[in-house]
Amino acid sequence: MLKGFRDDPPELMIPRERLIEAIRRVYRSYGYAPIDTPALEYLEILTGKAGEESEKQLYKFQDQGGRWVGLRFDLTVPFARFAAQYIPEAGVPFKRYHLAKVWRGENTARGRYREFMQCDFDVIGTRSLAADVEIVLVIHDLLRALGFAEFSIRLNNRKLLTGLLERLNLADRAAAVLRVLDKLGKVGPQAVAEELQAAVNLDPGQSREILRLAELSGANAEILRQVEPLVAGSAVGAEGVADLTRVLDAARAAGVPEACLQLDVSIARGLDYYTGTVYETYLTALPGIGSVCSGGRYDNLAGLFTSQELPGVGASLGLDRLLAAMQELKMLEQVGTPAEVFIAYFDADRLPEYLRLAAALRRAGLAVEVYPEPKKLGQQLKYADRRGHRVALIAGAKEFDNHTCQVKDLQKKEQRDVPLESDARSIVAAVKEILK
Amino acid sequence: MLKGFRDDPPELMIPRERLIEAIRRVYRSYGYAPIDTPALEYLEILTGKAGEESEKQLYKFQDQGGRWVGLRFDLTVPFARFAAQYIPEAGVPFKRYHLAKVWRGENTARGRYREFMQCDFDVIGTRSLAADVEIVLVIHDLLRALGFAEFSIRLNNRKLLTGLLERLNLADRAAAVLRVLDKLGKVGPQAVAEELQAAVNLDPGQSREILRLAELSGANAEILRQVEPLVAGSAVGAEGVADLTRVLDAARAAGVPEACLQLDVSIARGLDYYTGTVYETYLTALPGIGSVCSGGRYDNLAGLFTSQELPGVGASLGLDRLLAAMQELKMLEQVGTPAEVFIAYFDADRLPEYLRLAAALRRAGLAVEVYPEPKKLGQQLKYADRRGHRVALIAGAKEFDNHTCQVKDLQKKEQRDVPLESDARSIVAAVKEILK
Repeated sequence: MLKGFRDDPPELMIPRERLIEAIRRVYRSYGYAPIDTPALEYLEILTGKAGEESEKQLYKFQDQGGRWVGLRFDLTVPFARFAAQYIPEAGVPFKRYHLAKVWRGENTARGRYREFMQCDFDVIGTRSLAADVEIVLVIHDLLRALGFAEFSIRLNNRKLLTGLLERLNLADRAAAVLRVLDKLGKVGPQAVAEELQAAVNLDPGQSREILRLAELSGANAEILRQVEPLVAGSAVGAEGVADLTRVLDAARAAGVPEACLQLDVSIARGLDYYTGTVYETYLTALPGIGSVCSGGRYDNLAGLFTSQELPGVGASLGLDRLLAAMQELKMLEQVGTPAEVFIAYFDADRLPEYLRLAAALRRAGLAVEVYPEPKKLGQQLKYADRRGHRVALIAGAKEFDNHTCQVKDLQKKEQRDVPLESDARSIVAAVKEILK
Repeated sequence: MLKGFRDDPPELMIPRERLIEAIRRVYRSYGYAPIDTPALEYLEILTGKAGEESEKQLYKFQDQGGRWVGLRFDLTVPFARFAAQYIPEAGVPFKRYHLAKVWRGENTARGRYREFMQCDFDVIGTRSLAADVEIVLVIHDLLRALGFAEFSIRLNNRKLLTGLLERLNLADRAAAVLRVLDKLGKVGPQAVAEELQAAVNLDPGQSREILRLAELSGANAEILRQVEPLVAGSAVGAEGVADLTRVLDAARAAGVPEACLQLDVSIARGLDYYTGTVYETYLTALPGIGSVCSGGRYDNLAGLFTSQELPGVGASLGLDRLLAAMQELKMLEQVGTPAEVFIAYFDADRLPEYLRLAAALRRAGLAVEVYPEPKKLGQQLKYADRRGHRVALIAGAKEFDNHTCQVKDLQKKEQRDVPLESDARSIVAAVKEILK
């Protein structure tokens, strides 16, 4: 297999599909609509918005017609192109989700894969904070649907830093300040302060104020209280405080537990792209793996492709990161089959009877595998164990004549005879009892 | 967008996702396990088994590391590579499904797309006919799950033609005969007979016998009766008759209606690859679109990649073709949203209340969109109509104070007041009544 890529065998793909279905269900429950776009795009579409790093990682080539094309490296650029074409007809607001593979020729030494799935959701065409609130609700429901009880959705708002920089008369140096601030977690406040002074030319008082903002911690209300004087006199800064207050209040009122909501003024990543609310999400049990769902509000999605201004807000769920976390937290069952029930092919002449039994169980919503060959029972049961089937049904001539069937719990190694009716009612009940 | 490619907007993607979920559910109900493989493979993996046509259509290029790579053009070649690596550990039988995109630089003048989804399922590691029978059952369940009541699963067996050619002493000319026979539907029996004589050097008697086999029609038992003398004296031919008889009998016994099962000795396509049972599937309402699910039995999946012999049987569902058919047959509802319920944002100060109402409906399994801005009600309802929401919930200060909510059927344009409880029980009931 190609370097930097990987196969998904059933043991990984079964939980992956289950997660993807849970994710889709949450997106749909909020009215986000699915879209898809081609894996390949004209190269100039992709490079129009790609930074230097993305451009280096691009898989690009000339196709049979001599056109320069590339594999998408994210879902934002294709969405911008799509929106520019689709929105004039469909109108706004437009809510979409997009679950799809993207490709980046990354340095695999960092343990990254060159093909991975992104799970983006966005609302575009509205500046309303109601949309910002909804993103919080969706993130909350996503994490809950995937089985996480404890996590924190961390919120920031780009306007706080803008407000502070306005107050310090540094509005024109925002990008440079952000680049340095982004290193806070890695190098610490002392080094950041020095670099702000050396590289961005701030005076010690200015760098102290910026660090004071970035290092605020404590309860949400406490942080907001302390932000206010830092942005005093800036209309944008006051707006940031009001926006955050409103998003927090509405999310809590809509049912998100207080413990899941954490103001975090230190979030700098993406602040050069985002213009309002910014989101990150950390698992309480594994904060070290980083944010599992990040996003924010932006002013204009598709400026390169249309003159129509499309403000929006959205986030992206890190499916691969979440799967890795769930594996580490032993939240995933490792099985090689999606079928709970295994039917041994015991009596060579009774294939139709096994098939009818399987069909009856399927009608009751069970997934059932019938072994394809009348091999020795021991071999068949060993196979069923290895694959991870939960229940085996065993019937030979004697059982069929007596209208019974052995129902075997493969984990507990217990078995009992159950009446075999034409609709397999008793067997279905016995199987469901074991699966409970 | 790139020539030969297309976007899937919500109107197409909503039914597509629903179909994919139904397909997965059927595969899983038989114990087929999902796998996935990279979109990119080493070029030599892809070209090892690609015919001349596939090779011309390959998207291939050198990656950042100078490696020659290509986008997969089908799911069989990646499955062969995967199986060679995975089977030694996982053992057989191995049942997998794989739903994924493939890419072919086809001539778009023929109305084909260069990116499309394949939906393959296979059992490998067994020669048992029970597996051949199961493929019929899966095809039947797939078509039923997608909403088709009338379709015919057409069966042939490569051994019939092999048997006839053996009887005619033409076993060594099988490939050439197949190439000509494949044109039967297009050019007719006269032209095929002439070409068999001119190009394959058969005598008139031989070509007549071959055409007699290919043109047999009628009831299944009648066809089998007529095949027998044509393959008389050939052990392989007799086996073909026995195999087909057994597959038909077992499929019928397992519940597939007689009307869905049709022997079709004229199926030639793929017979040079397949070695036993061959499947095609036609929609009764639209036979002209061609087979929507085709496959067959083969002797060795992964000969290029491993010395382990992996016989198997499988088929591939033509999702894009089926979607086109369902569109033509008006079986698809065209909606722009997956959410049945629309909540108007009527009173600017009541956002938390709208969000709580939405959350209560979601807990009851409904998908709910809350409009993000407190615009004029008329505008909001126009939006809801355009998107395809089925029910609108409208509540302002008056309604909240009276603990009621207007429930509006957007298709019938009828509305009524319903009590608004904290768990929204009555509203849920009213909505479900409308959706029934």
